[in-house]
Amino acid sequence: MDAQPLYRQLATHYLDAIRAGALRHGERMPSVRELMRLHDVSLSTAVQTCRELERAGWIEARPRSGYFVRPPRRNSIPQPEEPDLAQPPDPAQYVGIHARVSHFIEQGRRHRITLGLSGARAAPELYPSEKLKNAALRALRRHPDILVSATPPAGDPRFREMLARRAVASGQVLAPEDILVTHGCIEALNLALRAVAGPGDTIAVESPTFYGLLQILESLGLRALEIPTSVSTGLSVDALELALSTHPGIKAVVVVPHLQNPLGSIMPDSEKRRLVQLCERAGVALIEDDTYSDLVDADKPPTALKAWDRGGNVIHCASLHKTLAPGMRLGWMSAGRWQARVAMLKYAQTRDNEVWSQLAAAEYMASGDFDRHLRRLRGALREQRGRMADAIAAHFPHGTRMTLPDGGITIWVELPERLPSRAVFDAAIREGILIAPGAMFSNSGKFDHFIRLNCGLRYSDEVDEGMRALGRMVAALARKTTKTRLQVCRA
Amino acid sequence: MDAQPLYRQLATHYLDAIRAGALRHGERMPSVRELMRLHDVSLSTAVQTCRELERAGWIEARPRSGYFVRPPRRNSIPQPEEPDLAQPPDPAQYVGIHARVSHFIEQGRRHRITLGLSGARAAPELYPSEKLKNAALRALRRHPDILVSATPPAGDPRFREMLARRAVASGQVLAPEDILVTHGCIEALNLALRAVAGPGDTIAVESPTFYGLLQILESLGLRALEIPTSVSTGLSVDALELALSTHPGIKAVVVVPHLQNPLGSIMPDSEKRRLVQLCERAGVALIEDDTYSDLVDADKPPTALKAWDRGGNVIHCASLHKTLAPGMRLGWMSAGRWQARVAMLKYAQTRDNEVWSQLAAAEYMASGDFDRHLRRLRGALREQRGRMADAIAAHFPHGTRMTLPDGGITIWVELPERLPSRAVFDAAIREGILIAPGAMFSNSGKFDHFIRLNCGLRYSDEVDEGMRALGRMVAALARKTTKTRLQVCRA
Repeated sequence: MDAQPLYRQLATHYLDAIRAGALRHGERMPSVRELMRLHDVSLSTAVQTCRELERAGWIEARPRSGYFVRPPRRNSIPQPEEPDLAQPPDPAQYVGIHARVSHFIEQGRRHRITLGLSGARAAPELYPSEKLKNAALRALRRHPDILVSATPPAGDPRFREMLARRAVASGQVLAPEDILVTHGCIEALNLALRAVAGPGDTIAVESPTFYGLLQILESLGLRALEIPTSVSTGLSVDALELALSTHPGIKAVVVVPHLQNPLGSIMPDSEKRRLVQLCERAGVALIEDDTYSDLVDADKPPTALKAWDRGGNVIHCASLHKTLAPGMRLGWMSAGRWQARVAMLKYAQTRDNEVWSQLAAAEYMASGDFDRHLRRLRGALREQRGRMADAIAAHFPHGTRMTLPDGGITIWVELPERLPSRAVFDAAIREGILIAPGAMFSNSGKFDHFIRLNCGLRYSDEVDEGMRALGRMVAALARKTTKTRLQVCRA
Repeated sequence: MDAQPLYRQLATHYLDAIRAGALRHGERMPSVRELMRLHDVSLSTAVQTCRELERAGWIEARPRSGYFVRPPRRNSIPQPEEPDLAQPPDPAQYVGIHARVSHFIEQGRRHRITLGLSGARAAPELYPSEKLKNAALRALRRHPDILVSATPPAGDPRFREMLARRAVASGQVLAPEDILVTHGCIEALNLALRAVAGPGDTIAVESPTFYGLLQILESLGLRALEIPTSVSTGLSVDALELALSTHPGIKAVVVVPHLQNPLGSIMPDSEKRRLVQLCERAGVALIEDDTYSDLVDADKPPTALKAWDRGGNVIHCASLHKTLAPGMRLGWMSAGRWQARVAMLKYAQTRDNEVWSQLAAAEYMASGDFDRHLRRLRGALREQRGRMADAIAAHFPHGTRMTLPDGGITIWVELPERLPSRAVFDAAIREGILIAPGAMFSNSGKFDHFIRLNCGLRYSDEVDEGMRALGRMVAALARKTTKTRLQVCRA
């Protein structure tokens, strides 16, 4: 601390005061002269202190009035703690997610929902509906017999060409024939897991991970081995390496390297390369769910795990569901050495995808609007995530933690006082608000005090009202918990 | 025989003569006067004899020339023999169909195919492409956000309502909510089998059955127990009952009651009712593949097995793939007591179907054109099946047997001299003709001397040329076999 410049020390002092509530938002900061007097510092130091706090967003200047404390901002909320990466993993378990998720889904159906924050779903108006519809109409007019003609195996050639072309930007070198079109990324993950594993086998997954994956594992009779995952850098390759050496019989690893669901983490390239090489050495299939990579806030697309794949050990899966067309089920996969096997399983499971939607997508993607749309979508999501984060900062009680992902549709919130997310879920649903409780994202129970919030909706007054209400509920539950704890202590 | 009227006895005599080749096609029949003299019958009897033979299609009148023997017609070819229904079934086996089918598919890809007779696929021009396309365009214009909006679980309400309404005609009483929309009947069968059975379990199937089903069994690690199936009346309920009492652990039966693939048989209602009750008593799930029922040549739709279902033990599966839209994958299922389970498995496997194709189909089906189209399609297929059957009768050698189904897209042909279908497949493919060898339709090897021929193509000169060529090849192979047998006998 002493090594820091004086103005920074002073700024930190005021920051602590603001965080502690000693200086509340809307209150006037001491003037520059008052700072000089109170702390015996030079004019220059006092001015720099204010500028530092202003730059960081904690105070704002009002003309001819002085500096005022701003409401708590997204940056004031710390991230959830990193997991203990050195801890040996829990034993692999059969997944019992379905019963848990069904309970929440059932509850959701019983109540009238006015604010749906449980999905990872951007609002329809954020997608190029008109252009996509026109592309679909054009495709149908150009190929009028498409609905009554045999479907090409593995997918429409034009669509696969388009996908292969786009894959170059993420470092993948794929021929169109390397791409199998599937009913969304969900079918791709199903096929990948069926290709590499059988009932009773163990699959390493991130902890937490999205419940869709846990449901697939459960439905296929597979065991999940949860690997600690960093909020910032994604799957811990060290922890995975430890797991691989202590757990024989791990058949595959499933990873969401970019905008991990629900953490929002993005794996650094160095870790991605390590991961690919580790799995290749260990003879464990590496299944990459790359659904969100086009939603990363960056100038260029992130590099896929598949880009480092030398031996065909990486099964890359992706989809247009979150990026272009939530009303279509257009996914694809490149399964390396398992390509023939997944093609056979797909054929036996659902035959070939309809051509019409593939043509509509290819037609749209050829128009050049796709990248413009993605930039707009990313921008809108960035804005919406920011406002949701501000709302959490402003209305959720002290002790709340949350992620601030560099892209994507959701925020992962750690509740204060290790509040059970079920309690928040139940309170929220009585007010018509649906959230995703952390219990849905892991078999382990470690994330039962987290919730995932959808940032896909435009931040309207309704959303703001809902966030205030949520904050009140969480605060009320937290106070009850604290009170109980104090009572227990006294007794 | 003596009880028959004289003219019929005489007609039979001439029929035998024609079949034996004593009277060849193109030859002139004895005139009426000659018949009176040769057989000492009245004018009336002689005239009735000729009329009988003409009515049955064996002779035709040429003006001022007399009656001439017509080429052998479809009725001249006997059906394949019924299987031995009393024989206990073979032990249930794991299916090894994929390797076998892959071999044929691979061969098919290596050669240039000019005549594809291996599928069960009617030509695109037999489907209402224009009307369907317009319905799709209308659906898209009426619901412009359909491609970017969340998909309703279990299927689009309007489509499910339409399906429930149409199901009434086949005796099913279903609410729209009882219907789960799937990616074709193939996905429905997958889900049904996954719901009721796990790897290693035994499923009773018809023998022969379509290889798509055998592929599904193989991919799910299920064992197939093949039940003798009658060419005319379908699955032998007696044989199934025997199998259920001797094979514990049969989890389900999969049946195609109407226009069984490949036999073309149609189960009588009495047998269907027995089957449903047998499975209910035995606690074995009954999975009904009802893909072809709208292709049965009849005034009213056949009654589904599901119509007799009291306990929710019948899983009804169907599709629009063969009847309306070969370019779409629109199937559905009503799974009785397993409905929730199949819905969960579908959600975990492919989420929900796209809405757009469901709306297009519902839009078309509401137009009233569907039943008109089905009548036209049935008529066209009837004509095409008939001409294919005539061609087999005319060009395939003596000893050939075949089915003459009352509907549907294919004909099942038993080769003479128990010729291996592989040999015919290989010979045909060298001439650019693709057929479906019987080896693909069973695990048992019992149908290796059968082939299935697609009657979905308009009977053009090319098809006729191909059928003549096929007949020549089969004849040549048969002669070689006979020669070899004679040589063996002499040695």
